[in-house]
Amino acid sequence: MTVIDSLIPEYGGNLFNLEECQEKIRINYSDIRDPYSLRPLIKDVDVLFSLAGQTSHMDSMADPYTDANINCTAQLNLLETCRSVNPEIRIVFASTRQIYGRPRYLPVDEHHPIAPVDINGIHKYAAEQYYSLYSQVYGIQACILRLTNTIGPRMRIKDARQTFVGVWIRQLMEGAPIDVWGGDQLRDFNDVEDVVDAMLIAALSASVQAKVFNLGSTRRVSLRELAEMMIALHGSGELEIREFPGDRRRIDIGDYYSSHNQFSSLTGWSPRITLEETLERTISFYQRHYLHYL
Amino acid sequence: MTVIDSLIPEYGGNLFNLEECQEKIRINYSDIRDPYSLRPLIKDVDVLFSLAGQTSHMDSMADPYTDANINCTAQLNLLETCRSVNPEIRIVFASTRQIYGRPRYLPVDEHHPIAPVDINGIHKYAAEQYYSLYSQVYGIQACILRLTNTIGPRMRIKDARQTFVGVWIRQLMEGAPIDVWGGDQLRDFNDVEDVVDAMLIAALSASVQAKVFNLGSTRRVSLRELAEMMIALHGSGELEIREFPGDRRRIDIGDYYSSHNQFSSLTGWSPRITLEETLERTISFYQRHYLHYL
Repeated sequence: MTVIDSLIPEYGGNLFNLEECQEKIRINYSDIRDPYSLRPLIKDVDVLFSLAGQTSHMDSMADPYTDANINCTAQLNLLETCRSVNPEIRIVFASTRQIYGRPRYLPVDEHHPIAPVDINGIHKYAAEQYYSLYSQVYGIQACILRLTNTIGPRMRIKDARQTFVGVWIRQLMEGAPIDVWGGDQLRDFNDVEDVVDAMLIAALSASVQAKVFNLGSTRRVSLRELAEMMIALHGSGELEIREFPGDRRRIDIGDYYSSHNQFSSLTGWSPRITLEETLERTISFYQRHYLHYL
Repeated sequence: MTVIDSLIPEYGGNLFNLEECQEKIRINYSDIRDPYSLRPLIKDVDVLFSLAGQTSHMDSMADPYTDANINCTAQLNLLETCRSVNPEIRIVFASTRQIYGRPRYLPVDEHHPIAPVDINGIHKYAAEQYYSLYSQVYGIQACILRLTNTIGPRMRIKDARQTFVGVWIRQLMEGAPIDVWGGDQLRDFNDVEDVVDAMLIAALSASVQAKVFNLGSTRRVSLRELAEMMIALHGSGELEIREFPGDRRRIDIGDYYSSHNQFSSLTGWSPRITLEETLERTISFYQRHYLHYL
């Protein structure tokens, strides 16, 4: 197994995450925007988990070009490379709930209209369509999973670029108040291990190829409730409710939670780890390893 | 008034088209992919008709990167430039029916699902979303028009890159049989002058800003019928029904025609030029000016 990462400092890669499994994997440092290095890497693999991307909504608005290069052009590059050197490959592509924009009904299923509220959502949806098109036209087997908030040990906590829960963890560890923007918005969360299971199933199951699915959870909590759970599990901490500034309000989506029924009914997958367990394992992880994530 | 064109030989630009109005316009030769030249051009204008693009569906499949650069990144560049030097600008963006893919019902209205069947459709839709997002987030006034087959004098006839009717005109002029792929597919057509009227209305009407509309026509004909009309108007010619080869069949969309009711009810626009008039004026134009378009 090969892990490909460019280790862009603002993104989610962290070599500490691979220390425990370094005997079992090969690390290849490269950027998926590089038009050549993917060829030898993709040539002989059975499955590609296409997870690389620019994930920050705010960064996508401040620098739409980088978001376009990574989330669109590089995805095209990846698919063109597969088409040219390994058309038999299976791909699992990590997409995002962000493409739905502000929900018109809840829970959001795969038939919900697509209406991204930021550049990142526009580009992730374009990339989804690339994967679908290459499945239909060139027979490349790709399954697209639209992830909801995915959390757990080993996520980025320096800032909110990967998930807002990351920066909350840091605030908790540093004894600073947790900044809760708004507070009443409902969200659903998946444990990263449940998401990994879903991805393995997506790679192995013939019935999900060339299709698009939501992941998600039937457990929904408000942001305020989530912060309170984290403070209780950590044993100390406080939260501060903050008003949205203008530039965030314009791209905020209100309540959001997904229906994962379609994926579950086809594959039997459903999230097994409760939100409490996830938060407990995550907080305990960062209590031990906080310094590796600064 | 300034016309901006890069005159890429495979695209629609032709200086002969501007000869009659050259006293009234300024021509600026530049490529919208150039990150700098748009700034002075956009700075002081009231209205921008954003029509530049890669239009060939087949070319977009053969070279998805160029399509991405022109139809996505350059559109971002254009909008970022407006945001930075002229946020009061009004924009009319020419989009395409291609984003709907194979129609699930007819006529296709603006609520029809988006399901592009080629790279060009994916990118044109991403660009639409940029224009909508910049309208919503930054207050730039943009109206998006989804054009159906637009034909008339002065279109490209060298090949089918701009419209298949172009290459039919050339075949007619050269005494070659008109190649009709399939033949039974229904299509609607707009005369280029009706489309220009729609664009002027879109620029001037406050009620259509930050919205998306189909153009279209209630007159629908099969491709075979269209070819027969053209042969009759030209006074001679023949047609040859051809079977789709594999790579075209995969991106063909079957019958397509639009509903333009939404734009018409808001603005009063409707196409005024009959298909017969359009074809007659077009054939007569190329009988006189054929050599300027080779």
